[in-house]
Amino acid sequence: MALIVQKYGGTSVGDVDRIRNVAKRVLKTQAAGHQVVVVVSAMSGETNRLVDLANKISKDPDGREYDQLVSTGEQVTIALLALAIRDLGGQARSFLGHQVRITTDSAFSKARIKSIDASVIHDDLAKNHVVVVAGFQGIDPEGNITTLGRGGSDTTAVALAAALKADCEIYTDVDGVYTADPRVVPNAKKLDKISYEEMLELASLGAKVLQIRSVEMAMKYKVPLWVKTSFEEVEGTVVTTEDKDMEKIVVSGVSADKNEAKIAVRRLADRPGIASQLFESLAGANINVDMIIQNVSEDGFTDLTFTIPKTDLKNALRLAESVGKEIGAGKVESADNIAKVSIVGVGMRSHSGVAAKMFTTLAQEKINIQMISTSEIKISVVVDDKQADAAVKALHKAFIG
Amino acid sequence: MALIVQKYGGTSVGDVDRIRNVAKRVLKTQAAGHQVVVVVSAMSGETNRLVDLANKISKDPDGREYDQLVSTGEQVTIALLALAIRDLGGQARSFLGHQVRITTDSAFSKARIKSIDASVIHDDLAKNHVVVVAGFQGIDPEGNITTLGRGGSDTTAVALAAALKADCEIYTDVDGVYTADPRVVPNAKKLDKISYEEMLELASLGAKVLQIRSVEMAMKYKVPLWVKTSFEEVEGTVVTTEDKDMEKIVVSGVSADKNEAKIAVRRLADRPGIASQLFESLAGANINVDMIIQNVSEDGFTDLTFTIPKTDLKNALRLAESVGKEIGAGKVESADNIAKVSIVGVGMRSHSGVAAKMFTTLAQEKINIQMISTSEIKISVVVDDKQADAAVKALHKAFIG
Repeated sequence: MALIVQKYGGTSVGDVDRIRNVAKRVLKTQAAGHQVVVVVSAMSGETNRLVDLANKISKDPDGREYDQLVSTGEQVTIALLALAIRDLGGQARSFLGHQVRITTDSAFSKARIKSIDASVIHDDLAKNHVVVVAGFQGIDPEGNITTLGRGGSDTTAVALAAALKADCEIYTDVDGVYTADPRVVPNAKKLDKISYEEMLELASLGAKVLQIRSVEMAMKYKVPLWVKTSFEEVEGTVVTTEDKDMEKIVVSGVSADKNEAKIAVRRLADRPGIASQLFESLAGANINVDMIIQNVSEDGFTDLTFTIPKTDLKNALRLAESVGKEIGAGKVESADNIAKVSIVGVGMRSHSGVAAKMFTTLAQEKINIQMISTSEIKISVVVDDKQADAAVKALHKAFIG
Repeated sequence: MALIVQKYGGTSVGDVDRIRNVAKRVLKTQAAGHQVVVVVSAMSGETNRLVDLANKISKDPDGREYDQLVSTGEQVTIALLALAIRDLGGQARSFLGHQVRITTDSAFSKARIKSIDASVIHDDLAKNHVVVVAGFQGIDPEGNITTLGRGGSDTTAVALAAALKADCEIYTDVDGVYTADPRVVPNAKKLDKISYEEMLELASLGAKVLQIRSVEMAMKYKVPLWVKTSFEEVEGTVVTTEDKDMEKIVVSGVSADKNEAKIAVRRLADRPGIASQLFESLAGANINVDMIIQNVSEDGFTDLTFTIPKTDLKNALRLAESVGKEIGAGKVESADNIAKVSIVGVGMRSHSGVAAKMFTTLAQEKINIQMISTSEIKISVVVDDKQADAAVKALHKAFIG
C-alpha cells in the first residue's frame, strides 16, 4: 500500500462529467490498495472569469481582495469532487487551505508555503476517506487567504506529498514531458524520465507542463513526480534524481518562453552598489528577474539589461525609471516582443562545444541573438519572438533529431 | 457618529455596476460620519448556479460539501465590493465567516450562529476601514464551513449588529414592509413602523422581506432593523419594539405562504408519547414543523395533520411513514397544493371577533378552510393554493381597506 497525492488541473475538472471521471480514477487508485490525497485546480475558465470581474471593478486590484476572490475557484471544485466521489459510493471530505493549515507568507498572488499540518489529513486517511484539498491557496499568519500564483496547484500537491512522504502524480492535458513542444516540433519525443535539474530548467523556460516552484520543492524533498494525462491510460514521464543513463544525453529538451519582457537601463555609473539598488527595489515588489546582462564598462558607465515576466513589465518599468532617476542613470528602454529559446541537458556538464553548435545553428537560420545566459545544464538566448518557433525547430533537429 | 451594519441582497449586488453603486452608498454613509460594516449576499443567480452543479453531480448532496460549495458565492461578492470601495478611493477589507469567528453549530445548510468575535471588526473600524463581511456563512467548532440557510445573510447582519451594538439596515429590492404583497393587492400600503412580533409572524408566513431568524435575533437583542431599497432614496420601514400607536391597529398585514406542504397520519393510537415519537424524528432531521392539528379522539384513535416546508416534504414523508409503521398508525397522506393565509396585528390582543370576521370573509368568497392555527397576534388558515390570492385580497379589503 502506498500513499499517493494526485493533482488534477483545470481541464481535467472542466465540467461535471470530467469531475465524475476524476472521481472514478481516484476510487480506482484507492481500490488498488492505496491511500489517496487529491489536489484540484479551478474548473477551466473559472479563474479567468473571476480575474475579469476583478479587472472590471478595479484598475489595480488590491492583492488581499484579489486572492480572497480567485481562491473560490478551487473551493467549488473540491466540494464537487467530494460530492462526486460520495455519489459513486466512496468516502471523501474536502479541505480548504486553511483547514489543513497550509500556511504561507503574505505575498498575495505569489505566496510561498511555509508549513502544512498533516495531522488532519492523516486522521481522514486512517478512516479510509479520500482527502480532497484545494490547490493554489493557503493562509498567512494573520488569517488572510493567499494564493500561490498561476499553476500553484502543482506546488500544493508537491508540498503535500513532501509533508506526507508520498509519491506525487500530476495529471494534465499532455501525456508527459517532451523534448520540445509537439505543436512546434512534430517529431518531438516523449521522455520516460527526466532529472529534477533538467525539468527545473525546462519549467522555468516556458515548457508549461509543471510549475517551476513545484519542481524545486520536489527536488528539495526528493518527491518522485509523475506527469500523466487524465484522458488516457498511458505511462507518463517521471521526474526524479539524475542517474547514469541520463548523463549520456547531451540535450534532453528545447524550449521557448514568450512570456518575458526586457528592460534596459542606459549609462549606469559603473561602481559597486548601483545594480543592487535596482534589483532590491524589484525584489521588494516581488518581481522575479530572470536574465541579467551587464556590458563591459566604457568611460565609467555601463548598460544593464534584464528580463522579467511580461505581466510585471508595467510595475518593473516604473520602478526602474524611479531608481534610474535617483542614481542618475540614462534612458530606460523596454521591449516585450522577445522570446527566450533554450537547450537543456545534464550531459552538457561533460560535453564541450554545445554553445558553439547552438550559435552556429541559429546563425545558419539568420536568427539574431539579443542576449545570452548559461548555467551548468542550460544555454538560453533571447531572440525576436517571431523567430522563436524557427529557432526551436532548428535546435531540435541539430541536437535531438 | 453611529455604527451601522448595512446588508445588501443578491439583486443589489447582481452585477459589477450594481456593486459599484453599493460601494458609493456605503462611502456616502461613511462620509456622513458613520462607521460602516457591510454584509453582502451572493450575486443574484450565483447560489442557484452552485446548487445546480451540486444536484447535477449528486443525487443527495452531503451537507458539509454542499456548504463548502455554496459559501463561495458570498466570498466572491465581498472581495468585489471591497475592490470597488478601494477603487473609489475608500479603505475596505473583506472577511469570511471564519475570519471574524462567526461560529455556528454543525447543522449544515441551516446552521445557527453561536458567537461572533467582534475584535477584528473593531480593529478595522478604528482604522477608518469599511468592513465587508460575507453573509450566510460561518464555521463550526471543528473548522467546517457552515451556511445559515436561504436568506441567512439577514441573520448575519443582525447578529453583527447585536455583537457591535449597532443599527441594522437591510437593503432589498422592495422599499419597505407592506400590508400585503403589492402584486396581489394593488392598494397595499407601506408601513412606516412595525413591531418585531408582527414582523416575525409576517416573515414566518411568507412575506419574503426578511428572514425569520434575523427578526427573532433583532427582537432578542433589541436591534433596530430598517428595511430599505438600494435602488431609490426613500424612507423604508423600521422594525422595532411595540409602541402605543401600533396597538390601535388591529390587522397590520395580510400574507400568503405557498411554500408549505401538509402531511396527515391517520388512525394514530390516542395515548401519551405517540405524537412525540413522530415529531422527535422530524426534529432529528432538522425539519421545521409549522402547524399541527390533532382531531378529537374517536374510539381511541385520532388523525394528526401537520405542515412542513415543501422542500422537506420527501424526507418528512419517509420519516412519517417509517414512524407510522413502528407505532401501528394507519395511512400517511400528503398534499403540496396548499397555501397558508394569515392576518397579523398586535391590536388583536385587545380586539375580539377578529377570527369570526376572517372566517366569514372567506366563506363569502367560497374559500374552504382546511386547517386553522392561531397565536396572540395572528390567525392563519390553510386553503387550496389556487384560492390564496383571492383570500388575501378579500381579507385586506375587510381589515385594512
